[in-house]
Amino acid sequence: MNAQKHTVTALVEDKPGVLNRIASLFRRRGFNIESIVVGHSEVPDLSRLTLVMGGDEAAVEQVTKQLYKLIDVVKVSDITSDDMVARELALVKVRAPSSARGEIIQLADIFRANIVDVAPEALILEVTGDEEKIGALLELLRPFGIVEVMRSGRVALARA
Amino acid sequence: MNAQKHTVTALVEDKPGVLNRIASLFRRRGFNIESIVVGHSEVPDLSRLTLVMGGDEAAVEQVTKQLYKLIDVVKVSDITSDDMVARELALVKVRAPSSARGEIIQLADIFRANIVDVAPEALILEVTGDEEKIGALLELLRPFGIVEVMRSGRVALARA
Repeated sequence: MNAQKHTVTALVEDKPGVLNRIASLFRRRGFNIESIVVGHSEVPDLSRLTLVMGGDEAAVEQVTKQLYKLIDVVKVSDITSDDMVARELALVKVRAPSSARGEIIQLADIFRANIVDVAPEALILEVTGDEEKIGALLELLRPFGIVEVMRSGRVALARA
Repeated sequence: MNAQKHTVTALVEDKPGVLNRIASLFRRRGFNIESIVVGHSEVPDLSRLTLVMGGDEAAVEQVTKQLYKLIDVVKVSDITSDDMVARELALVKVRAPSSARGEIIQLADIFRANIVDVAPEALILEVTGDEEKIGALLELLRPFGIVEVMRSGRVALARA
C-alpha cells in the first residue's frame, strides 16, 4: 500500500494563507492528496508540513516543482525512498462501562496507548504509531463502541 | 494564552477539496486560524478536524455558522469551554554525539518521549503533549542542536 504513496515534507513560510495556497494548488491540478499536516518548525516563522499523496514519481516531481513556484515555500523533500520515521497521533473515545474497562486498559497497554481520560462510561486513549497500528487498535476497540476518533494524519521525518 | 484561543472540532465529508474550501473560507473572512488538523473519523467517509483560532466568542460563532453553510460539514462543536483533551504530536531530530546521548535520553524519559531513531550523530524523539510541554522539551533540547522538528498542530476531543 505504501508503495503507491509518497511522503513529501516541506519547509514553508508561516504566513496566513500558505496552507490554503498549497491546498488549492493541489486541488486545481487534480493531485491525489491524502493528508497534509502543518506545524511549527525548528525555525521561527517557518512551518514544516508533511504531505501524503498518491500517484507516480512524475506526479511527485510535478508537485515538488509547483511547490517551489510558491514563493512561501523554502524547501521540499520527497522522503518516500529515504528511510523515514512516520507517525500519526489518534485520540479515541471508547465506550467503557466498568465491566469492559479492564479489557480496554489491557489493549491500551499492548499498543502502548495512554489513557488520558476516564469517565464512568467512557475512556479516551491517546496512541501514536503508523496508520496500520492505529487501524489495528481501532478494530480491536470497535466491539466496545467507538464514540469519537480524532486523528492527526501522518507526520514524518527522514532518519539521520 | 489559551483564554484567547478557541478549539473547534468538526465532522466533515471526506471529499477532495474540503480542506481547501474550509481554508479559503477562513482566509477570505480574515479569521485568525492558528492550526487545522484533519484525519479519518470513526465514521467511514467522514473526517474529523480540530481547528484552533484566535478571536472572541462572536468570531467563533461566525466561523461555526460559515462552516455549516458548507454542505460538506456535518457537525461543528466549539469545545473550548468544555473540559477537553488536547494533544500535539512532535517528531524532533536532535544532534546527539555519543557524549550527549545519555543526557538527551534522560530528558526524553522525563517527558515520556520515545526515542524512535538512533544514528551515530543524532536521535529522533517522538513526544505528545500540550503545546507548552512540547515547547518546554524543545527549549531543553535546543543547546544540543535541534536539526528538524515536525509538529502536528493540536488535536482535541471533549471529555466524556
